[in-house]
Amino acid sequence: MEDTDSIRIPASQMEAEFTKILLKHGFRKDKALICAAVFTNNSVDGVLSHGVNRFSRFIKYIQRGLIDVDAEPELIHSAGAVEQWNGKLGPGPLNAIKCTERAMELAMNSGIGCVAQSNTNHWMRGGTYGWQAAKAGFVFIGWTNTMGLMPAWGATDSKLGNNPLVIAVPFGNEAIVLDMAMSQYSYGKMETKKLEHSLLDFPGGYNSSNEITFDPADILDSKRPMPVGYWKGAGLALLLDILSAILSGGLSTSQISNKPDETGVSQVFIAFDTRKLGNFPSIQNTIADIISDYQNSVPVDEQTTIRYPGERILQIRAANLHDGILVNRSVWEEILTLS
Amino acid sequence: MEDTDSIRIPASQMEAEFTKILLKHGFRKDKALICAAVFTNNSVDGVLSHGVNRFSRFIKYIQRGLIDVDAEPELIHSAGAVEQWNGKLGPGPLNAIKCTERAMELAMNSGIGCVAQSNTNHWMRGGTYGWQAAKAGFVFIGWTNTMGLMPAWGATDSKLGNNPLVIAVPFGNEAIVLDMAMSQYSYGKMETKKLEHSLLDFPGGYNSSNEITFDPADILDSKRPMPVGYWKGAGLALLLDILSAILSGGLSTSQISNKPDETGVSQVFIAFDTRKLGNFPSIQNTIADIISDYQNSVPVDEQTTIRYPGERILQIRAANLHDGILVNRSVWEEILTLS
Repeated sequence: MEDTDSIRIPASQMEAEFTKILLKHGFRKDKALICAAVFTNNSVDGVLSHGVNRFSRFIKYIQRGLIDVDAEPELIHSAGAVEQWNGKLGPGPLNAIKCTERAMELAMNSGIGCVAQSNTNHWMRGGTYGWQAAKAGFVFIGWTNTMGLMPAWGATDSKLGNNPLVIAVPFGNEAIVLDMAMSQYSYGKMETKKLEHSLLDFPGGYNSSNEITFDPADILDSKRPMPVGYWKGAGLALLLDILSAILSGGLSTSQISNKPDETGVSQVFIAFDTRKLGNFPSIQNTIADIISDYQNSVPVDEQTTIRYPGERILQIRAANLHDGILVNRSVWEEILTLS
Repeated sequence: MEDTDSIRIPASQMEAEFTKILLKHGFRKDKALICAAVFTNNSVDGVLSHGVNRFSRFIKYIQRGLIDVDAEPELIHSAGAVEQWNGKLGPGPLNAIKCTERAMELAMNSGIGCVAQSNTNHWMRGGTYGWQAAKAGFVFIGWTNTMGLMPAWGATDSKLGNNPLVIAVPFGNEAIVLDMAMSQYSYGKMETKKLEHSLLDFPGGYNSSNEITFDPADILDSKRPMPVGYWKGAGLALLLDILSAILSGGLSTSQISNKPDETGVSQVFIAFDTRKLGNFPSIQNTIADIISDYQNSVPVDEQTTIRYPGERILQIRAANLHDGILVNRSVWEEILTLS
């Protein structure tokens, strides 16, 4: 939907603007470039909520001292192919890229590698690190905990994070990347739908009368978003939080929720080096065969295309690189005030 | 619901009966004892579908030559902390126990260990291996692929396995064990509900007119069970299958579905040795704090108890060990004909 409230920003212009602002806010040149690329690429891939739409808030966190632009993750304990790192409240995307790289290095040595990071900040879009690892030839499994955003099954208060889980594999020159939070819809998505005065396609949570509802306004009001698969997604969110906290030695969702802002989260990065597997020569054929069979599914109707996770991103990416990224005008204007 | 169609069997009697039958069908004594214990313990824990209710089918698979009672998994490739094993179509539970043990050994060496197993058989209840590892002090992540049981999102034919995922952590002398298939309800559950002429509590799939339904009979008819979290669970099922196949070098769901029976599945077992972590002394406190906060959730009503995954099993286990396991009379009578 192109309208007067939106403006198309070429990716190169966006990246240059982000870089300039990051430099102004104390980032070293090399780090500013990487961080600007992450926010830009997330936007190019259509994930504006963790790209351009989140950039001003990222800068505000820096201004408020919640993100230390100079901090670098530090190794605090090595257990062979598992390492525990302290993110020292550095910029989440930079910390996560570093941990993904380190997990890949460990995997190059041991077949599998895991970095568990405490005390870091929001990594923005989890898929970033899935693409990073998969395009380098690694299988990736990673997740982060968050502050409480979702109730336990049968509860009304939000004790669970939505704890996004990322699984990625190399696929030709690209990747298959699953990036799923444990709530059916994000708060961002529900806010967008509410502004459009439209209902969700599927039940997104409970209203304040404990009834399942499609109405995003009701869910924003009750603060009871639905876990994916009801009790199952709630259980998965709990376990991912426990693993984040114990593997990293960092904070749990409960502890993060007790802070005034969401900082100091705990993350896990697992990489497998596919080149070390006995069947390495045939792996790409195996994946292609699975995807081919999957895409040969019988669709429910002629309008439906069966897509694998990450597939649509390739089209969005190509379009946005060609046409520029469609950004809300007020979002972009706020960003311009930061430079 | 105790009725004349059911009979209570003490766990010790069940285990002795299973052992006798397994010995009769060619199992070596030590293996018969382990396998009988798995089927019995699954029943004791209330998972009858992968315990006593599945035992006769397990024996039939042996009689038909689909399970080789003497086969043992063989190491085919080592990549450090990742190993690829060939299950040689041995009994699924024995193979899975062995791979879990081996993943723990690798983790004792490297902090993390992974065994990917090709060419094995149905492991029955995935939670078995989560309990095994977690009670020994390990964090466990494991999954299996299956034959096609669930459509891709937007499709009508079942190209996806329900690919159960297990995540487990030690918790005091017990464990927290999440054991979730990627379909909202299993075919077994839907068949039970249909026999009871009752509806599912939540939408369990689509009917043949492409409408979401609570009616298990409609879903059994359309063969379109709902993935957990709609497109999200479908995506997770796809990725778990890809990882099963490429990490093990074994068959994918697509290839398994082309066989007349579900054999030769691919499985992944990942263990972390918590003793190797820098924060090992505080891990149990961390988990206890998370669970305590979680259980302090505000329930939707006075009847609701907030439970963590695996919690209810402790009560079911205690009751079944005390009272015996309530088994369908015809199921038990069929088992008795096998000895």
